[in-house]
Amino acid sequence: MRRSIATVSLSGSLADKLTAVGAAGFDGVEIFENDLLGSDMSPEDVRRRAADLGLTIDLYQPFRDFEAVPPDLLAAGLRRAEHKFAVMERLGATRLLVCSNVSAAAIDDDMLAAEQLGLLAERAAEHGIEIAYEALAWGRHVDDYFHAWQIVRTADHPNLGMCLDSFHILARDVDPYAIRTIPGNKIFFLQLADAPALPMDVLYWSRHYRCFPGQGDLDVTGLVDHVLRTGYDGPLSLEVFNDIFRQAAAMRTAQDAMRSLIALEEGVAQRAGGSASASGALPPPVVPTGFAFAELAAPSAGPVGEVLGALGFVRGGRHTGKPVELWEQGAARILVNSGSAEGQDGPALGAIGLETPDPAASVKRAEALLAPVLPRLRGPQDAPLDAVAAPDGTEVFFCRTARPDHSSWTDDFAQDRSPAGAATGEITHIDHVALTQPWHHFDEASLFYRSVLGLRPHDSLELPDPYGLMRSRAVSTEDGGVRVALNVAYVGAHDGRDDLAWQHVALASADIVATARRMRAAGAATLVVPDNYYDDLEARYDLGAERHLLLRELGLLYDRDDRGEFLHFYTATIGRVFFEIVQRTGGYRGYGAANAPVRLAAQHARRTRRAPH
Amino acid sequence: MRRSIATVSLSGSLADKLTAVGAAGFDGVEIFENDLLGSDMSPEDVRRRAADLGLTIDLYQPFRDFEAVPPDLLAAGLRRAEHKFAVMERLGATRLLVCSNVSAAAIDDDMLAAEQLGLLAERAAEHGIEIAYEALAWGRHVDDYFHAWQIVRTADHPNLGMCLDSFHILARDVDPYAIRTIPGNKIFFLQLADAPALPMDVLYWSRHYRCFPGQGDLDVTGLVDHVLRTGYDGPLSLEVFNDIFRQAAAMRTAQDAMRSLIALEEGVAQRAGGSASASGALPPPVVPTGFAFAELAAPSAGPVGEVLGALGFVRGGRHTGKPVELWEQGAARILVNSGSAEGQDGPALGAIGLETPDPAASVKRAEALLAPVLPRLRGPQDAPLDAVAAPDGTEVFFCRTARPDHSSWTDDFAQDRSPAGAATGEITHIDHVALTQPWHHFDEASLFYRSVLGLRPHDSLELPDPYGLMRSRAVSTEDGGVRVALNVAYVGAHDGRDDLAWQHVALASADIVATARRMRAAGAATLVVPDNYYDDLEARYDLGAERHLLLRELGLLYDRDDRGEFLHFYTATIGRVFFEIVQRTGGYRGYGAANAPVRLAAQHARRTRRAPH
Repeated sequence: MRRSIATVSLSGSLADKLTAVGAAGFDGVEIFENDLLGSDMSPEDVRRRAADLGLTIDLYQPFRDFEAVPPDLLAAGLRRAEHKFAVMERLGATRLLVCSNVSAAAIDDDMLAAEQLGLLAERAAEHGIEIAYEALAWGRHVDDYFHAWQIVRTADHPNLGMCLDSFHILARDVDPYAIRTIPGNKIFFLQLADAPALPMDVLYWSRHYRCFPGQGDLDVTGLVDHVLRTGYDGPLSLEVFNDIFRQAAAMRTAQDAMRSLIALEEGVAQRAGGSASASGALPPPVVPTGFAFAELAAPSAGPVGEVLGALGFVRGGRHTGKPVELWEQGAARILVNSGSAEGQDGPALGAIGLETPDPAASVKRAEALLAPVLPRLRGPQDAPLDAVAAPDGTEVFFCRTARPDHSSWTDDFAQDRSPAGAATGEITHIDHVALTQPWHHFDEASLFYRSVLGLRPHDSLELPDPYGLMRSRAVSTEDGGVRVALNVAYVGAHDGRDDLAWQHVALASADIVATARRMRAAGAATLVVPDNYYDDLEARYDLGAERHLLLRELGLLYDRDDRGEFLHFYTATIGRVFFEIVQRTGGYRGYGAANAPVRLAAQHARRTRRAPH
Repeated sequence: MRRSIATVSLSGSLADKLTAVGAAGFDGVEIFENDLLGSDMSPEDVRRRAADLGLTIDLYQPFRDFEAVPPDLLAAGLRRAEHKFAVMERLGATRLLVCSNVSAAAIDDDMLAAEQLGLLAERAAEHGIEIAYEALAWGRHVDDYFHAWQIVRTADHPNLGMCLDSFHILARDVDPYAIRTIPGNKIFFLQLADAPALPMDVLYWSRHYRCFPGQGDLDVTGLVDHVLRTGYDGPLSLEVFNDIFRQAAAMRTAQDAMRSLIALEEGVAQRAGGSASASGALPPPVVPTGFAFAELAAPSAGPVGEVLGALGFVRGGRHTGKPVELWEQGAARILVNSGSAEGQDGPALGAIGLETPDPAASVKRAEALLAPVLPRLRGPQDAPLDAVAAPDGTEVFFCRTARPDHSSWTDDFAQDRSPAGAATGEITHIDHVALTQPWHHFDEASLFYRSVLGLRPHDSLELPDPYGLMRSRAVSTEDGGVRVALNVAYVGAHDGRDDLAWQHVALASADIVATARRMRAAGAATLVVPDNYYDDLEARYDLGAERHLLLRELGLLYDRDDRGEFLHFYTATIGRVFFEIVQRTGGYRGYGAANAPVRLAAQHARRTRRAPH
């Protein structure tokens, strides 16, 4: 399929937008009229620049409030159209989007609409231009595609066809199935946008919250499947109005948009019954099975090592070529890298390792979805590494740890058992990692983990932090072997505040009470949970006096869902990082979100109290 | 009236919030439960701290999902309540907010609801606690105050009354008139919030967009009037859930909240027929009649003077004690201050002078509404000045220019006619000034200009800038003598970008064509408007070929409304400042917002082109 994008989806000047669209590898572009009006590029300049970038101008848009009007307004509309046809000829654009009339002057008369659109198409034909008629979800009389199709069919003009827009159809819950009854050659254009499920008026939702397919909650894949079954062979074109994309860097947004289309095409091919690889050579997802490791960059290994030691980890190895320590307990492995530049401001979670059946295939998949591939060889003696960078800069390594069929990253580590011997604690594995995203890259991150790693996104949550609402969305494998919580600081948060970029590694304990006692015995600091939390917990749940007392004494937080229970506690924060210890029982699926406000308040309070020192 | 505020309205820890509430002069506070749960202050600590700050704890909230449930849930609810009563006794709080049940377990049975709420009230009475029952706008079966009142009336328990919340009532367009039928002693609490008219689900709207009374579009004044007529004499208490207030500085938000209540009380007194001054000693508004001057701070007077000279201004005076030039034309006066620290980064609009009938009374009004009053005497020889600071730091001077009944700021200026003599241009006066607000202080600014100066707010607009959506809201006197456009850069815009803080002074011309030609003849730079704009203008309006050509040649922008026309153009930007020249005909009331996207794109393009030099 040809891939296109509307200039309104990106930030900056028209020239900047064209450059970004070309750089991201699109085939074409929709010129949004306001972008042209504000530009000092003439239509001829735009045409040349697009051609230089290998872009066709697939659509000029929008032309508003034309059809089903009294004669005087019809005359004004035709006059206006002639001016636009002239601009389009200069641009070299042959398709004009006409949106269904929203003005109070529009008459509820389909025959009149058909007649006047036919007249417009006849005028357009004189310029070699086609009219693509679109039902806006908030059109005055025409607000769904099937109604628009009745009008187009009635007008019956070769230069008049349909523009279908996934948002306008799916946002109003109009059944898209009848799209299959429209002849493919009468669908002149297909615009695509997704959106998160938000309970608001459709116009307001459309103007502020659209996003790229796969980033929201609409079934764009299903809609495209319907459209392609008609024989439509025009472009898949993204048209997104989004407050955040309007201010984000255009080059990056355009690449994010391209990733969305690549993943969408795979989904459509799967829906249609074809295999993914048959459709467009996108290597199939290689779903990871668990965490191989989490790597913290730190100015020195000491403070992190103390916490890990208190948790029952032992230092199991040292990297043969770099100052990296490997701490182990059960299947949980933490690397502490004191030789990395990014760790100099205090520990930060810099990388995660994921177990996958085929590391090379994982990298191929990620690369096809535009993730930067990291160098395979870092030092002359190192085992080759398969790794890519996630949107927030986290390095994602694909591993087969200590398997006979593959080289293992652990081969780079020389055994280094501490005197205590093997780990004796209760930690079994890494339960999840929590990565804080910059507020303007949250949707991009969610699409990355979903499309590249095949993780399933969970509901998006809003968590009240004392200093703003945080958004949080988990992505996980079906069996929970890999779970990543994507958190985002509130919109507009100041970049400089390090407490907004907290990351954490959650470790699963087989006996969290024992682990908490172990920490206490080692004299290691844990996050102090306010007594008020326990008073409230007693009000909410009757867990028996003894258990309530135990939770309070050990500073354990409690949550439950319809499947089971969740106990957790937190270590002190070191730099940007802390550890969470969790115990899930009975199939609990969440992340203790109900306790997040109390946890965040306690962490901020701790920060505040430390400030005077 | 006693004034109170819910802790959820402010940012930070519970301790921070209490401090801010106390500092802003409130009488009481509602403790929002989550704020307590996340705090390491015990209830006794909170009680002591509040007492130290002179605050009573007026409400503990919220208690959810209690009434109209099966027996097992009732038992759990009563158990939960006993825990909360214990916390309230420790806090010294005697009133508990119970929200109407939203859970799926709630039964649609008013008698059952009344019976169970009566039981709760009976238990509460044993602790000296009163239950204030509130209808949430999204309650499962009880979602309006009148329904809630039927239940409270049926229960007929002395410890059970109503909590009324302006948002829950006005957001659903429930007629508040029937409030008058509720006995005042059965209204236990009154919560107040406003909200901008936004087309979305009421729960989503409530959680993110509430604001302080006078900052939104709800008739909070009318609602309070109804409530006071019942004889209610409890606190007026603000309860606002707002994404921006959650992250703004608590001290400032609390002061903004207090200003809102002071202004609200005046409005209520006026609505009730009393005079404003009778109600609470708030001096009445002194509505300004026009602009006395606009003052630009600049590193040197040269560049601004050149532009003003090209516009036909003459330098009419120099300040006798400071490096300030006075440029005049008609009634338009521009001060250029090259001795101010804030001008060192390039010209900035630092102050505006407003003509008022009584400068001292204007200051008294502003001071009563918590505006910082600026020193009256700046130098030993200066005329005394009446001035306050607006929320964005702009200094607002109240003037009587060259009137026999009052000292005049012009007395500080020595006459300094340029060789050209009196001004000969077409500029008649300052039409408006545009002040860019930090994005997290937009609502505060709008309330400031409305309450302090008595200006009327116009509709809030969203203007697409190439780098984000800008909000814009004008405030003006009824006759348009004073107009201020408040613009705000998009949420999350980076502080460091100077193009986000553009300010401008719009000058009215009696003949904008002559003024544009004058600029051209003087060789002065004006903002270049893209040709594409004029192509589109010809498509939209048929103004005749000659007029279209003239607009294009002179770079004039065009708009019209149902009353008249608007022509305007812009000078080049110097530092943070530019001038707009405008001509209104036939009663046009707007500010050319339709042209703002093109203007902003052109200004950004100019900035971009300059960057390489």
